[in-house]
Amino acid sequence: MISRKKYAREVKSIPKGFDNPNEFFTYVYNDQDIIWMGQNTNHLHSKDGIMEAMVSSIKKGDYAKYPPPDGFPELQDLVQEDLGLTHGFDCLITAGATESLYHTANNILEPENNTLTCDPGYLIIDNFCSRFGEVRSIPIYNPECGYKLTPQLARENLDENTKLICLIDPLNPLGSSYTKQEIKEFKEISEEHDIYLLHDITYRDFARDHHLMAKYAPDRTITIYSFSKIYGMAGLRIGAMIASPELISSVRTILINDLGTNVVSQKGAIAAVNSKYEWLDRIKDTTRSNQEIIKKAVDQVDGAFIPVYPSDANMLAIDIYDTGIKPSELADYLLERGIFTREGTYTSKLYGHRYLRVSFSIPTEHVKYFAECFLEAMDQLKVEK
Amino acid sequence: MISRKKYAREVKSIPKGFDNPNEFFTYVYNDQDIIWMGQNTNHLHSKDGIMEAMVSSIKKGDYAKYPPPDGFPELQDLVQEDLGLTHGFDCLITAGATESLYHTANNILEPENNTLTCDPGYLIIDNFCSRFGEVRSIPIYNPECGYKLTPQLARENLDENTKLICLIDPLNPLGSSYTKQEIKEFKEISEEHDIYLLHDITYRDFARDHHLMAKYAPDRTITIYSFSKIYGMAGLRIGAMIASPELISSVRTILINDLGTNVVSQKGAIAAVNSKYEWLDRIKDTTRSNQEIIKKAVDQVDGAFIPVYPSDANMLAIDIYDTGIKPSELADYLLERGIFTREGTYTSKLYGHRYLRVSFSIPTEHVKYFAECFLEAMDQLKVEK
Repeated sequence: MISRKKYAREVKSIPKGFDNPNEFFTYVYNDQDIIWMGQNTNHLHSKDGIMEAMVSSIKKGDYAKYPPPDGFPELQDLVQEDLGLTHGFDCLITAGATESLYHTANNILEPENNTLTCDPGYLIIDNFCSRFGEVRSIPIYNPECGYKLTPQLARENLDENTKLICLIDPLNPLGSSYTKQEIKEFKEISEEHDIYLLHDITYRDFARDHHLMAKYAPDRTITIYSFSKIYGMAGLRIGAMIASPELISSVRTILINDLGTNVVSQKGAIAAVNSKYEWLDRIKDTTRSNQEIIKKAVDQVDGAFIPVYPSDANMLAIDIYDTGIKPSELADYLLERGIFTREGTYTSKLYGHRYLRVSFSIPTEHVKYFAECFLEAMDQLKVEK
Repeated sequence: MISRKKYAREVKSIPKGFDNPNEFFTYVYNDQDIIWMGQNTNHLHSKDGIMEAMVSSIKKGDYAKYPPPDGFPELQDLVQEDLGLTHGFDCLITAGATESLYHTANNILEPENNTLTCDPGYLIIDNFCSRFGEVRSIPIYNPECGYKLTPQLARENLDENTKLICLIDPLNPLGSSYTKQEIKEFKEISEEHDIYLLHDITYRDFARDHHLMAKYAPDRTITIYSFSKIYGMAGLRIGAMIASPELISSVRTILINDLGTNVVSQKGAIAAVNSKYEWLDRIKDTTRSNQEIIKKAVDQVDGAFIPVYPSDANMLAIDIYDTGIKPSELADYLLERGIFTREGTYTSKLYGHRYLRVSFSIPTEHVKYFAECFLEAMDQLKVEK
């Protein structure tokens, strides 16, 4: 077991010219011209009811007061209704889905337990689970398993100390997702081996089809809900967790922010869920066609390919290993042209040297510009060798 | 050691007519007529630059982006300059001072360690420290020690496993604070026994005089900074921690919100620190005269007294034990008249049955109304017995 105290943050490489991650992120945040394809954020919302609700909340001055610790009941209800997980479930609003992930690890795991995760995957989950138990990160970067942690892989890697299986669905960074049959098989695994299932559905609304683990294994699933992606609210740091009343009750004893989650974010989140079906199709359609633009560009490059296409998320990986160009070189090249992307090391310890991750919930003209720059880069960087 | 996993949240009594804390807090939050004297929040800001900065940030739509993980450098610098802790210190912006308290406990404590806290005190600190080590809560509710954890009491209660002493200064709920001489003695204790000092300065700006532990023991002090009180931003959940670069560097390895703190809150916080000297005196003067109104009312009641007067914070305790009236009865009575206060159990395990805590950073006419209702209550509740 890696000590929970001194588990180092992943050492991810920082783009050329920056001393530390904070300096780099401040730069990309402040430069209004940078095209954000690096953090799966969603830039397809315009001035809308979400914005209006937050401005109105601020103008009332209610932010002088503390919110209720579990979240505004209206928002808790909306989240549960959005998923159809109303009866037999409870919900907590948290400072980002990140905080819900931490609470899940803290609540479920004892030092002797192990957790199954996958590589590539969302490494902060591995980090959190490692603070409370052992992590078994299963390599899934191959077409045989469909680039995902399958029920079969889970069965092969679990033992009597396995207490949690983490399913990111759709998967960051690849965009693979689960079929109903696979979800059912995970339910069986959880029952047979008394295992909890973390179902991170951050990218659910971008998927063509999606199945909630909680509907099949209600007592053993912790569903992690984000407002950062489909709702376009990443900087507002708000998320939620949905689970059985027993599990939520247990999490209440280990909360950190006992004074609740940002009231302005919550008011925005209420407007976001309420207005979802007014803008959802537009955003899904745009991301779908944006993805096609990227695919066409990648298909023109010998040695480059997209492992999972179409991606069911708002991001995909571009594998450039066989071109001889390094993802960090490509990321630096693109950043110089005003495009923020993420090299693979951010989401994989084993395969990070193979791919660049790009998200595409941005205006289509920016995706076209990316496609041009990408083709130029693949040409230029090859020539320079 | 109480297990970090199952450390129960304090069982605080809930006002009559409410099933759980979330229901109660939703009620007081939503009712615009309730007078907030229950959570030390500050309702003396009007439409100002803080509000404008947040509205402007939202209208730019920048909340679609993630902020830098440690905080905007501009805000980090402003916090450090506000305290005069620039050279030899580093700073992290967090989701409330609460998160900084948690990080401190997680970073400093090993299971064999113990922490010195005081009763009355801010119990979430005891809760957090109990998750990572043992807590020794020292009774301080008496005039001999000045209603605070003195250097002498610390010396009497520490042993070779004591790793952290928590100084809340001014103290929530009593408003006692430390002299320069006491701060210097704590520096000596920390050096002699290799102990860290958590200096929670949430209420610093309400004090007549205040001395930063970090100026005397820079390498062993973690300073906890809040935007919830003097800045009136409780619902925006933003705070900070300031410590040596070595300590901050260590905390970076155990962060939870690796995607940073709410961008709108940070923009508001920048405006708040920048404008501080435009409104600080007005708010201090109002709280000072509000406090006098409460004192005059309490002095009229036989058996009631204010243990620490004047309070150096924006709250004080009213001890009503000798009147035979229970704090919970008084709190319920006041709530029926639209005034939200806090009975002592929220901030004390040993003395909670003795006092009511009231905060007074609210408009003066509301304090006068409180004084009337308080006197009426003391009369009515006595008669009813």
